[in-house]
Amino acid sequence: MEDAMPDADAEAAPRPTGYPPTTRTVPTRSKERASYDRELVHRLLDEAYVCHLGFVRDGAPVVLPTLYARVGERLYVHGSTGSRPLRAAAARGEDAHKDTREDAGLPVCLTVTRLDGLVLARSAFHHSINYHSVVVHGVARQVHDEAERRAALDAIVNHVVPGRAADSRPANDKELAATAVISLDLEEVSAKIRTGGPNDEPEDIGLPYWTGVVPVTQQYGTPVPADDLDPAVQLPGYLKGMGA
Amino acid sequence: MEDAMPDADAEAAPRPTGYPPTTRTVPTRSKERASYDRELVHRLLDEAYVCHLGFVRDGAPVVLPTLYARVGERLYVHGSTGSRPLRAAAARGEDAHKDTREDAGLPVCLTVTRLDGLVLARSAFHHSINYHSVVVHGVARQVHDEAERRAALDAIVNHVVPGRAADSRPANDKELAATAVISLDLEEVSAKIRTGGPNDEPEDIGLPYWTGVVPVTQQYGTPVPADDLDPAVQLPGYLKGMGA
Repeated sequence: MEDAMPDADAEAAPRPTGYPPTTRTVPTRSKERASYDRELVHRLLDEAYVCHLGFVRDGAPVVLPTLYARVGERLYVHGSTGSRPLRAAAARGEDAHKDTREDAGLPVCLTVTRLDGLVLARSAFHHSINYHSVVVHGVARQVHDEAERRAALDAIVNHVVPGRAADSRPANDKELAATAVISLDLEEVSAKIRTGGPNDEPEDIGLPYWTGVVPVTQQYGTPVPADDLDPAVQLPGYLKGMGA
Repeated sequence: MEDAMPDADAEAAPRPTGYPPTTRTVPTRSKERASYDRELVHRLLDEAYVCHLGFVRDGAPVVLPTLYARVGERLYVHGSTGSRPLRAAAARGEDAHKDTREDAGLPVCLTVTRLDGLVLARSAFHHSINYHSVVVHGVARQVHDEAERRAALDAIVNHVVPGRAADSRPANDKELAATAVISLDLEEVSAKIRTGGPNDEPEDIGLPYWTGVVPVTQQYGTPVPADDLDPAVQLPGYLKGMGA
């Protein structure tokens, strides 16, 4: 089966117009599928809103799904102040009264994947998936600045539903105190893309197996109001067109 | 904003009918969302086929999307023999002529997430997502047994498109030699589920913001035949009903 797993283990080759490739963002194989283009990376990061955040705990990897948002060249992830990665990001810079950005942090890998299609080749080996993915390596740091924290939380809400942050009750002091925000700068970043049909071997073309692509998309259904919603409250414009 | 990030950092409480909880599979918060039920875990793992695999490289986490399949209480992931995690899984047991299962391995965290809905609360803080996720902690080991390797590769093809493995050309020796398979036993496993509507504060019920859930689903489109597909080859039964 054709390898669907990106890897990152080769010599870096500088490309001035995008994120500088590094040894861990240049793949050994399928190099043509890798991209360091900022515009492409931003677009892919903005289209999705669930990432998988990896960090190391007691020497072992942990991978958790979470929401994120991009503001310029920085990603934000939020969570309870009691959650593991958010505590860990803060642990290396204990003094919350000063900006510990320079010395605190948690090494993370934040990965965003969009599945685009199932690729059925004539040979089992060349089966694959079409996808777009972005992998961000870096050090996540807890955000202490209150304005940046508020902006990050708004960005996460607006990332999932554009326009929603202004159409909800803002967090109060107690809620803000219970929420931790970590940031991750977009510095060591790569995208990987597979598109198109199967790459069958020439000698397999005549085999009697159906071959092609089954497209996969994410769809929104009709918004379901909460049971206790006042019927006088109309469906907001930013939700129209999301569902049927 | 309501925390969408699971965490795992509390005392374990044994539950005899499912996977035994451990310190890293019992969450500190939202305990009611965690499950160790084997049947539920199997169902969630079987419904999806893209996972995010985390491992540690030079002390830093790496998270990559890849396909997987479940066979009983074991997961399989495949990739090029040159890809990083597959090489790493093999590196600790160099002798490929004997079964190195007992002493080889790569610590991994394999996470599968299905997004089910966007939860819009009246307060920004209680916004959330509905989702199902499974997190598997363990040690991935390279599979050397040829019969198990072939069965695992068939399982991965059939996991994505049930029935497809038998309706494609099996891997030849060269292809098999280029493909590595790693296994991960289901021992330290937890599911986490959020369903239902928003959990607004009682004092927010009267606020004039729309509140409810926007369902999210994954859809298949009409299969697109490859340009070079012989028109005499019909769409197979296992693809009918996947698209429009």
